Amino acid sequence: MKRYRLTVAYDGTNYHGWQEQSSGITIESVLNDALSRVLGEEIHVIGASRTDAGVHAYGNVAVFDSETRIPGDKISYAVNPYLPDDIRIMESRETDPDFHPRFTDSLKTYAYHIRNERIPCPTSRLYAFQVPVPLDVEAMQEAGKYIVGTHDFASFCASGAQVKSTVRTVREVCVYRDHQASGMGGEIVIRVTGEGFLYNMVRIIAGTLIKVGKGVYPPEQVGRIIESRDRSKAGDTAPAKGLFLEKIEYR
Amino acid sequence: MKRYRLTVAYDGTNYHGWQEQSSGITIESVLNDALSRVLGEEIHVIGASRTDAGVHAYGNVAVFDSETRIPGDKISYAVNPYLPDDIRIMESRETDPDFHPRFTDSLKTYAYHIRNERIPCPTSRLYAFQVPVPLDVEAMQEAGKYIVGTHDFASFCASGAQVKSTVRTVREVCVYRDHQASGMGGEIVIRVTGEGFLYNMVRIIAGTLIKVGKGVYPPEQVGRIIESRDRSKAGDTAPAKGLFLEKIEYR
Repeated sequence: MKRYRLTVAYDGTNYHGWQEQSSGITIESVLNDALSRVLGEEIHVIGASRTDAGVHAYGNVAVFDSETRIPGDKISYAVNPYLPDDIRIMESRETDPDFHPRFTDSLKTYAYHIRNERIPCPTSRLYAFQVPVPLDVEAMQEAGKYIVGTHDFASFCASGAQVKSTVRTVREVCVYRDHQASGMGGEIVIRVTGEGFLYNMVRIIAGTLIKVGKGVYPPEQVGRIIESRDRSKAGDTAPAKGLFLEKIEYR
Repeated sequence: MKRYRLTVAYDGTNYHGWQEQSSGITIESVLNDALSRVLGEEIHVIGASRTDAGVHAYGNVAVFDSETRIPGDKISYAVNPYLPDDIRIMESRETDPDFHPRFTDSLKTYAYHIRNERIPCPTSRLYAFQVPVPLDVEAMQEAGKYIVGTHDFASFCASGAQVKSTVRTVREVCVYRDHQASGMGGEIVIRVTGEGFLYNMVRIIAGTLIKVGKGVYPPEQVGRIIESRDRSKAGDTAPAKGLFLEKIEYR
């Protein structure tokens, strides 16, 4: 029995998120079906990030154990033809039998995409949150600085989430206007890299920075929101479709 | 009776092209239905470009005549709620009663989007043509220079098209790698501006430049292809989903 590691990209639009559940089709269930079919044994992947319904990924990571004789780096070629075109194994390889993608320290990078145009661009509607009022990107970048560091992010954790601690470390927050992005008005991207994230944390950060961008409150308010440890003080949870899990880096 | 001009954006994925036909739903038919419903009279739009099934647009232009008392610039606000979210009226205004969007001189700009990565990015699959082998963008840009100018583009016209003349004028061809484009490998964009286009001309230009990018033939071959006036000498007609009608400018 060997352990294999996959880098998985997907369009989250047509799925009920990563994790297998009884309410509908998930990325995990489709991967398990395709891997099981190709490898001829019952495969259960373990994913690094159990992304929500609608959230997209360029580089989620998953592992599984198998008796297969197919070389690790060839598994992606063997399995991709059996996946729908909105899920792709970008890379596969054999990995350490003890490697667990959730219990190993990592840096995760997410990007939240915003279309900042008066009338939403139809070809971007599934992959960005449309905000029709002008946003002040400099103010958003300023506000992002308060997020960086080790903080109790209770204000940025979905209510009802069961966690031992809401302290997390964010390494970097970058907010910029992407003029090259296709469409009429371009995009604003919020990129966040951190050592770990609470449930909905990036989407709540996005919703909060959007409020700063709209001028609802100044950048320094984000510091006060963090200190309050109060979810109701932060912004809305921005829609799932704007969120992309870009990459996961392990030490 | 007044004439109104619309700028229309759409995701072509779920439509059988612009022009009303019996085989399925089209952009034109959906626009006519929504406009007729809101304005309370039978409306028939005339479109500048009758894009093919799957082709997208940021700025197609259409006109229609109406007795409505709704101010021209408000028509977009009144009608958009009655359109599906993959079609949007970006702008509306009253226009000259003699303005015909196809019989008036214009410059049209199209962009063809290529994903140049080994494994296709799932979130771009509906809006770009995936070419998994490395493309030489400099060679493609060099080849594009042969396209610029007034030429007999018979080699770049779909077989069977009925036109009086295949001579057209291309003002500009620009090929570049868009590193900011979302996803793993970025995109290559071919942007073409011209005074008029033959049927499938931009998609055949794209297919031909892709062959140059792959090294199938050198840039100067494109000059010979033009001179041959022979469709079979040019490249394949690249898939519709990569093509975007970006804008139409009238004198």
